[in-house]
Amino acid sequence: MLATPLVALVMGSQSDWPTMRHAADTLDALKIEYEARIVSAHRTPHRLVDFSTNAREDGFRVIIAGAGGAAHLPGMIAAMTPLPVFGVPVESKALSGHDSLLSIVQMPGGVPVGTLAIGKPGAINAALLAASVLALGDEELADRLDAYRTAQTEAVPRYPSDDQH
Amino acid sequence: MLATPLVALVMGSQSDWPTMRHAADTLDALKIEYEARIVSAHRTPHRLVDFSTNAREDGFRVIIAGAGGAAHLPGMIAAMTPLPVFGVPVESKALSGHDSLLSIVQMPGGVPVGTLAIGKPGAINAALLAASVLALGDEELADRLDAYRTAQTEAVPRYPSDDQH
Amino acid sequence: MLATPLVALVMGSQSDWPTMRHAADTLDALKIEYEARIVSAHRTPHRLVDFSTNAREDGFRVIIAGAGGAAHLPGMIAAMTPLPVFGVPVESKALSGHDSLLSIVQMPGGVPVGTLAIGKPGAINAALLAASVLALGDEELADRLDAYRTAQTEAVPRYPSDDQH
Amino acid sequence: MLATPLVALVMGSQSDWPTMRHAADTLDALKIEYEARIVSAHRTPHRLVDFSTNAREDGFRVIIAGAGGAAHLPGMIAAMTPLPVFGVPVESKALSGHDSLLSIVQMPGGVPVGTLAIGKPGAINAALLAASVLALGDEELADRLDAYRTAQTEAVPRYPSDDQH
Amino acid sequence: MLATPLVALVMGSQSDWPTMRHAADTLDALKIEYEARIVSAHRTPHRLVDFSTNAREDGFRVIIAGAGGAAHLPGMIAAMTPLPVFGVPVESKALSGHDSLLSIVQMPGGVPVGTLAIGKPGAINAALLAASVLALGDEELADRLDAYRTAQTEAVPRYPSDDQH
Amino acid sequence: MLATPLVALVMGSQSDWPTMRHAADTLDALKIEYEARIVSAHRTPHRLVDFSTNAREDGFRVIIAGAGGAAHLPGMIAAMTPLPVFGVPVESKALSGHDSLLSIVQMPGGVPVGTLAIGKPGAINAALLAASVLALGDEELADRLDAYRTAQTEAVPRYPSDDQH
Amino acid sequence: MLATPLVALVMGSQSDWPTMRHAADTLDALKIEYEARIVSAHRTPHRLVDFSTNAREDGFRVIIAGAGGAAHLPGMIAAMTPLPVFGVPVESKALSGHDSLLSIVQMPGGVPVGTLAIGKPGAINAALLAASVLALGDEELADRLDAYRTAQTEAVPRYPSDDQH
Amino acid sequence: MLATPLVALVMGSQSDWPTMRHAADTLDALKIEYEARIVSAHRTPHRLVDFSTNAREDGFRVIIAGAGGAAHLPGMIAAMTPLPVFGVPVESKALSGHDSLLSIVQMPGGVPVGTLAIGKPGAINAALLAASVLALGDEELADRLDAYRTAQTEAVPRYPSDDQH
Repeated sequence: MLATPLVALVMGSQSDWPTMRHAADTLDALKIEYEARIVSAHRTPHRLVDFSTNAREDGFRVIIAGAGGAAHLPGMIAAMTPLPVFGVPVESKALSGHDSLLSIVQMPGGVPVGTLAIGKPGAINAALLAASVLALGDEELADRLDAYRTAQTEAVPRYPSDDQH
Repeated sequence: MLATPLVALVMGSQSDWPTMRHAADTLDALKIEYEARIVSAHRTPHRLVDFSTNAREDGFRVIIAGAGGAAHLPGMIAAMTPLPVFGVPVESKALSGHDSLLSIVQMPGGVPVGTLAIGKPGAINAALLAASVLALGDEELADRLDAYRTAQTEAVPRYPSDDQH
Repeated sequence: MLATPLVALVMGSQSDWPTMRHAADTLDALKIEYEARIVSAHRTPHRLVDFSTNAREDGFRVIIAGAGGAAHLPGMIAAMTPLPVFGVPVESKALSGHDSLLSIVQMPGGVPVGTLAIGKPGAINAALLAASVLALGDEELADRLDAYRTAQTEAVPRYPSDDQH
Repeated sequence: MLATPLVALVMGSQSDWPTMRHAADTLDALKIEYEARIVSAHRTPHRLVDFSTNAREDGFRVIIAGAGGAAHLPGMIAAMTPLPVFGVPVESKALSGHDSLLSIVQMPGGVPVGTLAIGKPGAINAALLAASVLALGDEELADRLDAYRTAQTEAVPRYPSDDQH
Repeated sequence: MLATPLVALVMGSQSDWPTMRHAADTLDALKIEYEARIVSAHRTPHRLVDFSTNAREDGFRVIIAGAGGAAHLPGMIAAMTPLPVFGVPVESKALSGHDSLLSIVQMPGGVPVGTLAIGKPGAINAALLAASVLALGDEELADRLDAYRTAQTEAVPRYPSDDQH
Repeated sequence: MLATPLVALVMGSQSDWPTMRHAADTLDALKIEYEARIVSAHRTPHRLVDFSTNAREDGFRVIIAGAGGAAHLPGMIAAMTPLPVFGVPVESKALSGHDSLLSIVQMPGGVPVGTLAIGKPGAINAALLAASVLALGDEELADRLDAYRTAQTEAVPRYPSDDQH
Repeated sequence: MLATPLVALVMGSQSDWPTMRHAADTLDALKIEYEARIVSAHRTPHRLVDFSTNAREDGFRVIIAGAGGAAHLPGMIAAMTPLPVFGVPVESKALSGHDSLLSIVQMPGGVPVGTLAIGKPGAINAALLAASVLALGDEELADRLDAYRTAQTEAVPRYPSDDQH
Repeated sequence: MLATPLVALVMGSQSDWPTMRHAADTLDALKIEYEARIVSAHRTPHRLVDFSTNAREDGFRVIIAGAGGAAHLPGMIAAMTPLPVFGVPVESKALSGHDSLLSIVQMPGGVPVGTLAIGKPGAINAALLAASVLALGDEELADRLDAYRTAQTEAVPRYPSDDQH
């Protein structure tokens, strides 16, 4: 499949990848093209400006951004692009992502970041939310997303089992 | 203007309206049609099921849901529709919306809610995020959103003033 | 013993079972029949509706529901049944169950969930609270519960010991 | 109506009454007899022991206990009676009831307190939870509780209104 | 040395002993007689009443009480004795002792518990605080406490070392 | 009455007095001599050193210290005197005394501060705890303290009243 | 006095001025020239880039930055200038500045922001910290700062007074 | 290189060294002379006074102070020296450094501590902030700091890699 990636999957550092790859895996499962990049708001601010101001004309439609601690990446991207930005608070060492969450979600009125849960569930859900946005204009993706959700529902067992943990 | 509303603006109770009307005002400012409804996850669960399972075929494209305390409304809607759901944690009395925020944002992997800030800024931003999603398929809205953001930027004064508070 | 289960022991996913089995063990110890089920508020919302709306006529008297993170299961069941619902906040990964607790306990006026402690102690106590409720109409159970409590009291040693930990 | 009260509604001090009267009002609405008492775990510990150890033979079936701060009342009652105890964390001055909540809900395995929300919603819900317990053995009460819940559902307006706040 | 113990060192369960033994060790180091006991506020409430109401006439002068979670032991003892009570919040599993701390320290006006730090440092300090109280009426103990503090000061190295951790 | 004050009642600033005067009032009620002083750990560190290192030979037996925010006063006094130090976390503006509490209570092993509740209840209780310490060597005070506690118990009404709030 | 301002005093919006003017007043008291500006990280990101990248060659020596909520301003400035940046968490509406504090202080290794207390004390202290930095190269300022600190020490009364509050 | 150390790197105990050595390593990387010392505010208060009151005349220009729990060291140093003080909250056992952070950052107006992040990132950043202060009067250091920052920027990879973690 040869297609322009619709989703930019950015993260503040290599250390966010074990979390953010769950977003990548979910996008893969839904056959959504994406490009994964490292953009550090603090260590590479000019890369941040370049990426954010050009994201729309570069063809991206949705941006997923993950960061931890004083997590400024999602909000700063949102400041410089009109595209929808979804933020993933990466679990931080001392405060378990509580700082990441508040730094991402408590944006002032005017510049939104749609924030997901801390860590892996948030990364998966950022991909699913991106899918739901893209599916508004792509019926085939809508079908794939419906199938994903149906499969997810069907995979829930009716009774707990002592065999698995 | 005669148009099917694209955005459903739902809230758990009348008491959420003083917060959620900021979402309504922002949608108005961007000329996005919406329908505001009260759907209580806890007191009207069947209304919740009806609303959520039919939202897509009723023509909605994006759902904004606000609730406070043990705020289950956004997540339960997201459980029953593939549309993008954006959640607004309404400030609660005892815990100032900290409970609302965690109840909305900490969704398990599989069912996303894009969560905004607690209270008024979150309500405004839910509308702006809905706009950014709808603008992906509506160039005129994209232009209006760009104009809104430009005006917002230009409205920031360069120096603090003792006259206003 | 052939009896209709009086207690429904539901949980949001298989991963809650290591916590919720402590409720099951406690019910076993008190010879209270129960049925353990997985009902995901978010991934199986229609199973949730079916279970909750039918719980009373299915013969259940008390419902114990455990969930973690944005834990909507206990509250949503309580929205759809007049039976007493007791909620167990399962310890979550990033926030250690603080999110689970607030999502379960901070229910709005009108729809109660009797909430127990986070994790294993809460699971044990949900079973004991269910027992205390059922014992109101079952003297034999009341006797077994009294015996359980007496044994518990007697099992507390008078002096700390370096041998055990 | 001349009846033995089934519910004991106890609180740690007179200052808890503005919160706990919402439990009283709700019990009144459901025509459930109750007796409201002040029992301070800390200032009247012997009254606490008397009340708790005699509660069952005094004819109470359910105990609602409200307290704030280091709120030991519900848990200490639960330590001395096999009756179901429901705890209401009263909003405290400095910490807004966060301390009350944790002091009530985090009971060790073995002695349960079914905990409700902080403040007024919790007081209302303690009464409703008591009602749901008593309704298991009282069909007329079950009908009144069903009617209460139906009325509550019907009272939720479909659309937010600018007239009320 | 044959002496009536001056300090009662009580704890809610055997599982608190690994923490509270640091209090015992510190009392040993200062040659203060103590008696260590398990008194569970919740599982052995009558033992609690017996212990607390008799503590003064049993000859104790100071009480150290450690407990975790909804830690009611120190406050309930303080409700039933005029002796000084020092509380040690034992680290709890889910909330790391935050619940223990608030349950112990946030006592209402009228019934004091002098609260120490969470866990081991708090256990050591409860013993030292008991020593400082007893030293007011025991010059030899005052000298031993002074020596302990001097030794402690002298044991602080002037420079960090890579050799130890 | 002409007597050397036994209790030093120190606070970080004049703004702590509305809280700490409740300690003073309680000491007055128990006829315990005290001296109230302002000692700012941060703005008057040398006064802090003078006060703390001389407190014992100045005749004080117990020190009550109140402070807010990064509340270092109680702990720093405790570092420089072997007398028992009781700390009162004064309610701070932004964080409601949560910062004051942690800054006072979380002392390292070796230097204890017996910490009371945030604000007024803590100030009252610091005085009562000082009284319980002094009463160990003063039977008349022990009697007054017993009387105070008895009166307190008797003042608790048995039933809530709508007349008072 | 005609001098190039050494301190840039920036804030995210006009609503931060009531807090940040305490920094301005303190700089005035120490006769340190400053320039107060509004730079919104989110609404004026390009102004942020311009200001930050040019701050050093524009002659500033120290930057004080105040912001609230998801407070990205101090950290983003620090990302683009080698000058020392001191951050003031402005008290936010719902979370009282807890979000502002974590968003400012929890910077990743590599890009420092020296963070002060939430609100007015933090604003005063940012100015004093800037003064202490500038005083390293300006003996007259060092003298003024010493005088300021001495006066501050002398202004602390020795005894609390009922007259003032 | 034979030079008077410009930076004092103090910490409350040997156990803080594994954190604070990251500050030392960073100062080394920037060729800034420093002296590392252990000064316990609580166990060696007179060493604290000596160090702090003499720091300026001893030739130090900047002080970095790390401590955990009720972390009084940075604030007490700042009370006794006009030099800039930067505080590093060391991660504490029970509360993960949340107590350390609040104890350091919430200083009252008048005595500033520029506070960095909890743990290792904070230690690195305290060194970098000290460097930025010293660089104001040392062009060679300014160049080394610029080079450090440039290298840091260049070291950020553009794409996440599965090879490293």
